[in-house]
Amino acid sequence: MRDPEYWLLPEGIEETLPQAAARLEGVRRELLDLYRAWGYELVIPPLIEYLESLLTGAGRELDLETFKLTDQLNGRLMGVRADITPQVARIDAHRLRREGPARLCYMARVLRTRPQGQGGTRSPLQVGAELYGHAGADSDIEILRLMLATLAICGVERVHVDLGHIDIFRCLVQAAQLSAEDEATVFGLLQRKAVSEMSETLATGGMNETHRRRFLDLAVLHGDAEVLPRARERFAGVDPRIDAALDYLEEVAATIRIAAPEVELCFDLGELRGYHYHSGLVYAAYVPGRGRELARGGRYDGIGEAFGRARPATGFSADLEDLLEAGALAADSVESRVFAPADTDAALEETIRALRAEGNIVVRALRGQQEDARTMGCDRMLVRRGNQWLLTEVN
Amino acid sequence: MRDPEYWLLPEGIEETLPQAAARLEGVRRELLDLYRAWGYELVIPPLIEYLESLLTGAGRELDLETFKLTDQLNGRLMGVRADITPQVARIDAHRLRREGPARLCYMARVLRTRPQGQGGTRSPLQVGAELYGHAGADSDIEILRLMLATLAICGVERVHVDLGHIDIFRCLVQAAQLSAEDEATVFGLLQRKAVSEMSETLATGGMNETHRRRFLDLAVLHGDAEVLPRARERFAGVDPRIDAALDYLEEVAATIRIAAPEVELCFDLGELRGYHYHSGLVYAAYVPGRGRELARGGRYDGIGEAFGRARPATGFSADLEDLLEAGALAADSVESRVFAPADTDAALEETIRALRAEGNIVVRALRGQQEDARTMGCDRMLVRRGNQWLLTEVN
Repeated sequence: MRDPEYWLLPEGIEETLPQAAARLEGVRRELLDLYRAWGYELVIPPLIEYLESLLTGAGRELDLETFKLTDQLNGRLMGVRADITPQVARIDAHRLRREGPARLCYMARVLRTRPQGQGGTRSPLQVGAELYGHAGADSDIEILRLMLATLAICGVERVHVDLGHIDIFRCLVQAAQLSAEDEATVFGLLQRKAVSEMSETLATGGMNETHRRRFLDLAVLHGDAEVLPRARERFAGVDPRIDAALDYLEEVAATIRIAAPEVELCFDLGELRGYHYHSGLVYAAYVPGRGRELARGGRYDGIGEAFGRARPATGFSADLEDLLEAGALAADSVESRVFAPADTDAALEETIRALRAEGNIVVRALRGQQEDARTMGCDRMLVRRGNQWLLTEVN
Repeated sequence: MRDPEYWLLPEGIEETLPQAAARLEGVRRELLDLYRAWGYELVIPPLIEYLESLLTGAGRELDLETFKLTDQLNGRLMGVRADITPQVARIDAHRLRREGPARLCYMARVLRTRPQGQGGTRSPLQVGAELYGHAGADSDIEILRLMLATLAICGVERVHVDLGHIDIFRCLVQAAQLSAEDEATVFGLLQRKAVSEMSETLATGGMNETHRRRFLDLAVLHGDAEVLPRARERFAGVDPRIDAALDYLEEVAATIRIAAPEVELCFDLGELRGYHYHSGLVYAAYVPGRGRELARGGRYDGIGEAFGRARPATGFSADLEDLLEAGALAADSVESRVFAPADTDAALEETIRALRAEGNIVVRALRGQQEDARTMGCDRMLVRRGNQWLLTEVN
């Protein structure tokens, strides 16, 4: 016999054993039923595709995360999906090609070459919903509400959502006429919230006082509802699109406050996660005690362009196992199981059939097995009384 | 815009669009509920493992079918699973380590480097059930019944099952004292049912008349119930294990004839599919007009040995998409969908919430969208009457 260590799974690769799998399957159904009730149709994109399809528009980060495989049939390079969003965008643009709004959802495993953070997974169970073909707050709000409903079904409490809007930074960059290189520098500093370093770098780089001031403001514009009026004041007259972005944030926040009053809403105008990908509203959900976001979403109107059909798009995604870990779902109560003897009596056969059809678990004894009802984890059993088979408690 | 061909999926790699995905999800639930009712617990093995785990005991064939990946974290070779059965065996032997019978089931995608046959898939959705820890006809019968119930749920009709038993060939090989090389030759000829070639080869090879006759008999022992008495006569006195195997086949067949009288049972004693893997009863299900088997199963008692715990094992597996293709399930009727206006009225919000909670699909209009109830595929809509929102038919 080999060292038991020998059969350990690769780091960040998990398997799900019976109790956890039953719970996962239950939540899976609840979530897919939720999305269905909101008009979202399930799609099942393929595990592997040619690399060009997977990485189109997704950029270098996803490339490094993607396991590569060679297609023996033609030598082309394929990848195991590291993200499902680009796949669903391809399906909307290239396969469905619907005229009106399309609502799609998915729930499937992705693989990543490296774990996400310390002790993180390399095989998240990605769940998400996407709405194509509508530009405007209603579709963003619908997706954000679905994200919050997803968290609620997974038992995640004390949710905190950070809202941001990509246009604000974009407009400030344009107004300051930054080169692509300078834009990347400022972007990096903002991402790290390195305010004092930013102050120095921008001054040394020769950016004028007005523009410098605005980027520094952006870096600290995070907090509750008072962020929006402060931003209006600071960025007054810079670009009407900034005012529109702030209006948009205000509208989304007002609707969510009514629809999900239990959620704490914050604004983070310097938050640019997915900057190269997103095109408007962006948001992420957090819970106390966990540094990383639990779910994320936003608008990414350009995504279908590479697949021959640019149209508005908004969506969210999360790792279902991450949600369940953060969630406070009550542990499943132990399921009732009925033990049936190995007897081949026709009446027993019919009794078992009927019990199973009603959703009961019936475990049949196997001739020669040593285990009885109790050791097989059964709390009830079938016993013969005359011509009938009756359910009795296991003592 | 690129050539639309550019986004085609690799050969044998499929994606599932809304209508098919909804049907698949429905059948998936029915099957998992079936297995659960029989006491089978769901497990979710990982998509990738170190290659040694995946290929242990599985032999060269699976090695060639398995996509290889390098683990960037330590340089070890991993594989994308090409079969789930060895994974579940590892889970039973190494993770669960239960004393009594363990009933496990699974439903997940596997990947194969090459399509199975002309136009075949490289990403079957493998579904199956395994019963560990019991040697005897009862566990084989239970698994075979589950396989037949699986076919029935998928709407597969006119099912024909071929039963065989590995011990018969094994005993004949022992009795003839064949070298490993000769065993492989005879095995290859039997697999191809090449009777006249076998006759020649065996005679040239110098096998004596008695043994030659037995292998030639084995090659033609297929057909209905009369195969068993013929086999008894031909192999009388060769080895008591042959008689035991024929008794076993008779017992299994007798029980299945009662439990599933609609299934046509045949015997094929020269059928050795999975010979290096199986250890007793083997079977496969076919339907008219399809050359390849639809589902397969049997006993493979040695499977856990490599994982440090040899115990009896029996199971079946199938590709769910293959079953649905062969099945005669009525096309899903078009789902009823309710169209709701974009109005933000609180009573409307509550009406929508209640409808969705009852399982209805409610598609909300998005301010600015051109499409109405009809073009959004809705057959009912919510309209305001005074303070109330009422459901009406879409004309």
